[in-house]
Amino acid sequence: MVPASAHPELPVLADSVRLADDGVHLLDRRVFPFQRTWVLARTPDEVAEAIRDMVTQSSGPYFAVLWGMVLAARDTGGTDPATARRALERAGERFIATRPTNDQPRRAVAKVLAAVDEALDAGDTEVAAAAERGARAADTDYRRRSTDMGTAAAALFGDRARVLTHCFGDLYLVGLVRALLRRGADVSFVCTETRPYLQGARLTAETLAEMGVPTTLVTDGMPAALLRAGEIDAVVTASDRVTMDGHVINKVGTLGLAVAARAFDVPFHALCHAPDPDAATGADVPIEYRDGDEVLHTLGARTASDRVTGRYPAFDVTDPEFVTTIATDRGTFAPHQVHRYWAAARARAS
Amino acid sequence: MVPASAHPELPVLADSVRLADDGVHLLDRRVFPFQRTWVLARTPDEVAEAIRDMVTQSSGPYFAVLWGMVLAARDTGGTDPATARRALERAGERFIATRPTNDQPRRAVAKVLAAVDEALDAGDTEVAAAAERGARAADTDYRRRSTDMGTAAAALFGDRARVLTHCFGDLYLVGLVRALLRRGADVSFVCTETRPYLQGARLTAETLAEMGVPTTLVTDGMPAALLRAGEIDAVVTASDRVTMDGHVINKVGTLGLAVAARAFDVPFHALCHAPDPDAATGADVPIEYRDGDEVLHTLGARTASDRVTGRYPAFDVTDPEFVTTIATDRGTFAPHQVHRYWAAARARAS
Repeated sequence: MVPASAHPELPVLADSVRLADDGVHLLDRRVFPFQRTWVLARTPDEVAEAIRDMVTQSSGPYFAVLWGMVLAARDTGGTDPATARRALERAGERFIATRPTNDQPRRAVAKVLAAVDEALDAGDTEVAAAAERGARAADTDYRRRSTDMGTAAAALFGDRARVLTHCFGDLYLVGLVRALLRRGADVSFVCTETRPYLQGARLTAETLAEMGVPTTLVTDGMPAALLRAGEIDAVVTASDRVTMDGHVINKVGTLGLAVAARAFDVPFHALCHAPDPDAATGADVPIEYRDGDEVLHTLGARTASDRVTGRYPAFDVTDPEFVTTIATDRGTFAPHQVHRYWAAARARAS
Repeated sequence: MVPASAHPELPVLADSVRLADDGVHLLDRRVFPFQRTWVLARTPDEVAEAIRDMVTQSSGPYFAVLWGMVLAARDTGGTDPATARRALERAGERFIATRPTNDQPRRAVAKVLAAVDEALDAGDTEVAAAAERGARAADTDYRRRSTDMGTAAAALFGDRARVLTHCFGDLYLVGLVRALLRRGADVSFVCTETRPYLQGARLTAETLAEMGVPTTLVTDGMPAALLRAGEIDAVVTASDRVTMDGHVINKVGTLGLAVAARAFDVPFHALCHAPDPDAATGADVPIEYRDGDEVLHTLGARTASDRVTGRYPAFDVTDPEFVTTIATDRGTFAPHQVHRYWAAARARAS
């Protein structure tokens, strides 16, 4: 049975990967909202497979990896702590390999391993319990950071926020919208449908409707026309990665929106908890190419000529010159200043 | 029965609106290439309805209006020439109103009326015969102009032509590709799927395959990534209208491509027989808004949340600053020089 939501005040997709005794339950985003089907992943391998197969995406893999690491930790019951630690690390490598562009799975693995190491260092050999504590703390932390980031981004708007967004920003988007609504801003959204998976048409549109935000759907080719017509106050997207020099890596299509926004003097804001200190620039981030056949189909039905080949770079890289602001959980930065996010952290830590 | 093609050397869509004794036969582009269904329009009203319902599009409405005018002329049999002429003019108004952005229906109507007027002036009162002669001459003329324009556009390429195109350019596209192939250029295409109707995925992809051109399909959000990566030599689209000051009106999505092309130093060439002497600038061209529900569906199936509204501006306006070249049947022009097309014509005429 799917566990009840721990966040009933949020749209369902913002709590759509849940840990239970029998495994990890994932709301299947491939068919949402037409069907509300939950997939049960009983083993770490099944969790990895669900991520690779796009059962969940955006923030979803972060939570799936947290709970997948808990499943892996449970599997170590009865083995000695060092062996358990090695098994957990191997499980983590499998999760990190599922999708290469977004670094959240890597962060989720690191958080659980750190909690386990902390326990082991303190002489606590209950690996499964330590992993679950670490995962739950990481879940709370991710939600808190999304809220802080949303608050920072909301401050970029005046009383009226006509926002164009792309793909599905998940908790990042929810954080921004909640902050705007809290402020009493007049919020409306235009979302792109985001082919081939239609995350915008299905996930973003449904989530914004759940939050009571007036939303208009356009195809991926229409944003430039709306930007030229002055109908949009800002383009805002989540990001799969932000580099230390301010490149934004996000769902393919983001670059075109950012370029058009600059051409028509509309700001483009990217949301991220923090820039990735391990990625100096855009070329350091591997871009995932998915099966080109996905471009030839729509929700499983063939929608292209049988005589053509598809190509599917799943992400693109937006150069800092096309980015106005990067909103993080520690406030907003111009793209070429975003490396200061970490300088501030080091200053605080010292 | 559908009449045999008069142009068997061309892809089927380049001769997909045909006149017969029982009416006008139109290959249904809404389901092509999955089904090859011909719609028979027996009356001028049915022809107008077929255009409005997108049975045909791109160059298709031009031919449909030519043959529709012939049907209207046949209906005047037995009436006096002046009444027949008025009936034909009314039929023309109905055709022109079907889709407001493209001016080819207006030109088709004018050509048939001119042929009828010429006959009447010469004392020939066989209106139906005159209309059909005019329509057949206009058909030939349109094909010749598309060939000349394609030849002019092909000269913009070197030995290798990696072309990105959007929507379906029909005879304009065929003219360019045939000229490139004649020249022995190494031609390949990337086409955008062009939601919501998927003209790129269905019509362009299939037509390029018929012509033996290697073709890759991408979603409407991917071109900027390919342009940034240096994979494209030029973006080329047809146009529904080019204004005297070099604005290009074409299928929505063209503007975003042109803006991205300029940002990454790739030329954008627009194809048109001639700029419209009656449209001084972009604001003079009415933009058709189609039913927003079309954005919420893909080939008839609902593909968006039930809780969202769609918006469908069917065309966009690309400012001359984003256009490199306008290729016409009288050679190529920089956008701000395109008005010279008509100056040259006047010079020749005087």
